[in-house]
Amino acid sequence: MKHFRKELWFKTSQRRTFINITDQVQTCIAESGIQEGILLCNAMHITSSVFINDDESGLHQDMEVWLEKLAPEKPYSQYLHNSFEDNADAHLKRTIMGREVVVAITNGKLDFGPWEQIFYGEFDGKRNKRVLVKIIGD
Amino acid sequence: MKHFRKELWFKTSQRRTFINITDQVQTCIAESGIQEGILLCNAMHITSSVFINDDESGLHQDMEVWLEKLAPEKPYSQYLHNSFEDNADAHLKRTIMGREVVVAITNGKLDFGPWEQIFYGEFDGKRNKRVLVKIIGD
Amino acid sequence: MKHFRKELWFKTSQRRTFINITDQVQTCIAESGIQEGILLCNAMHITSSVFINDDESGLHQDMEVWLEKLAPEKPYSQYLHNSFEDNADAHLKRTIMGREVVVAITNGKLDFGPWEQIFYGEFDGKRNKRVLVKIIGD
Repeated sequence: MKHFRKELWFKTSQRRTFINITDQVQTCIAESGIQEGILLCNAMHITSSVFINDDESGLHQDMEVWLEKLAPEKPYSQYLHNSFEDNADAHLKRTIMGREVVVAITNGKLDFGPWEQIFYGEFDGKRNKRVLVKIIGD
Repeated sequence: MKHFRKELWFKTSQRRTFINITDQVQTCIAESGIQEGILLCNAMHITSSVFINDDESGLHQDMEVWLEKLAPEKPYSQYLHNSFEDNADAHLKRTIMGREVVVAITNGKLDFGPWEQIFYGEFDGKRNKRVLVKIIGD
Repeated sequence: MKHFRKELWFKTSQRRTFINITDQVQTCIAESGIQEGILLCNAMHITSSVFINDDESGLHQDMEVWLEKLAPEKPYSQYLHNSFEDNADAHLKRTIMGREVVVAITNGKLDFGPWEQIFYGEFDGKRNKRVLVKIIGD
């Protein structure tokens, strides 16, 4: 069994944004030399997310509005967590979007349906944060 | 390390429905010959879901009502994604229900608690869509 | 490929609570002798959750309030599932929080970012319930 590990680093200019990381993840598979296996891709921070959905800008704006409705950023005082911080909403938004994805690798490629793309979801940005890619297989 | 891959295909008659796929997934394990390992089961489409919960019809109706409250289908015009499509709500519903499940295989069986069952959750049906089963182990 | 399996048991005194199980999961890795691989940790019951977030009591209280807003326990009669039971809300809360986490193992340790901690999330407690830890790797 082979194994591979890599960190991807991000520093966004906005508090919240989505970044398509599909190509970076596919590059990890090529570097690993693994043809058949399982890939884990997870946010290493608890106010960000890795998720799979459509790369369509209208949908991403819909998601921003929707997440703000389900877990609003303001007023900061509505959350007990925000005594020294202001990012309680980011913890909740990441909970809805998910920490990680697990993806099949087949013939050395992400085994994806027609529209699946991997995104880094940032909910408390403007600082250095990491995503982990771990692959096991043959 | 052995590996196994199979697609399960679905075409539902309704826009939204839940289908119990536990037996089909267990059959994949038997076909794979894998006794100890990890199974990934994921929707290959971004408007459907694979999730684990109870096979109880009242709960499934509760989930339908609940998802419609959190991410309503109509009016279609409330979502920017719906300029050429009408399925933005399906992307959001699938986000809540999740894309995938990862399950342990022990002694050649799904290593499940007493009520765990695997479901395909369709949120934009009436067309051919796929679920991927990938297994690695020995 | 090595494999390891262990059940962790819980009986909470409250209907809902979060328990930090990071140390118990790390102990499983030590017992397994696996240095590089993938760890699955999942609730074996459909009214509880395993998730990764911050070990901060204010945030946990925020999550309790937030989950009650998104999927309220009462009135019990609002859910069809509650004809013989009263835990429909627990099924929905667990859906938001997630059934499982998948974690990388690197050099015999949980490969975690600075604040990642694993929690058992109980939404229908006061009885014996289980979490499964399954590890594969070398």
